[in-house]
Amino acid sequence: MNGQPMLLLTIISEAVLESTLIDEIMAMGAKGYTISEARGRGTHGIRSGKWSASGNIRIEVVGDSDLCRHIVDNLQKYERDYGLLIFTSQVELLN
Amino acid sequence: MNGQPMLLLTIISEAVLESTLIDEIMAMGAKGYTISEARGRGTHGIRSGKWSASGNIRIEVVGDSDLCRHIVDNLQKYERDYGLLIFTSQVELLN
Amino acid sequence: MNGQPMLLLTIISEAVLESTLIDEIMAMGAKGYTISEARGRGTHGIRSGKWSASGNIRIEVVGDSDLCRHIVDNLQKYERDYGLLIFTSQVELLN
Repeated sequence: MNGQPMLLLTIISEAVLESTLIDEIMAMGAKGYTISEARGRGTHGIRSGKWSASGNIRIEVVGDSDLCRHIVDNLQKYERDYGLLIFTSQVELLN
Repeated sequence: MNGQPMLLLTIISEAVLESTLIDEIMAMGAKGYTISEARGRGTHGIRSGKWSASGNIRIEVVGDSDLCRHIVDNLQKYERDYGLLIFTSQVELLN
Repeated sequence: MNGQPMLLLTIISEAVLESTLIDEIMAMGAKGYTISEARGRGTHGIRSGKWSASGNIRIEVVGDSDLCRHIVDNLQKYERDYGLLIFTSQVELLN
């Protein structure tokens, strides 16, 4: 398959942050995003809070590493007060 | 872990295409699929249309590269009229 | 990005197993998990049963390979009686 190597950036967040994060993501130049509902629990990194068992969202963005880095840098400021889990994986974009 | 290297094919599509895409995927020989509800926005590739902010689905298929290529080739015809985002990632199948 | 290489363990399961699998996953030492609703169909590995077209969940855990292996080893016992699809992918954890 003649795909294009890209990164899939996945952000698991409290649902209350949805519009804030989407605004940040689009302002960084993303061409689009996908949101799906999720729930879960976690304590990640230095965050001391626990996510509630409901009310999470998964935001996904396909982009190059520059875009993903800019987005991630821009979301750091929310980590102190909100539960966030952020990771990337390598994908091959096929269209 | 003694896993088997496979591809995870992810298709983000307008929900109206669900049964059409599933029929294509199963006809190509997939052993199964997973669907989850999503919403989002995007303009990808040559498509000029924008996805509405709701009514998307994510279809996922685990398969070898031949199966994924056949499926992707077969879905090209829907790209002109519908919003589609298609990518693969490498996974290790563990059961 | 100064990320940390990790595995993303994905388990697609019948919804009825949710609390059982979560208990196993947390008992193995996972720091958290994400659940989202899914539906689908599949026959995987030696399982002869077919999943119904509804009532699946996706459970995701980010962890190192030791944690993922322990979880996978511990879930083998459910494969005989329930539809399970288990795979890992490499991710870079960014927070």
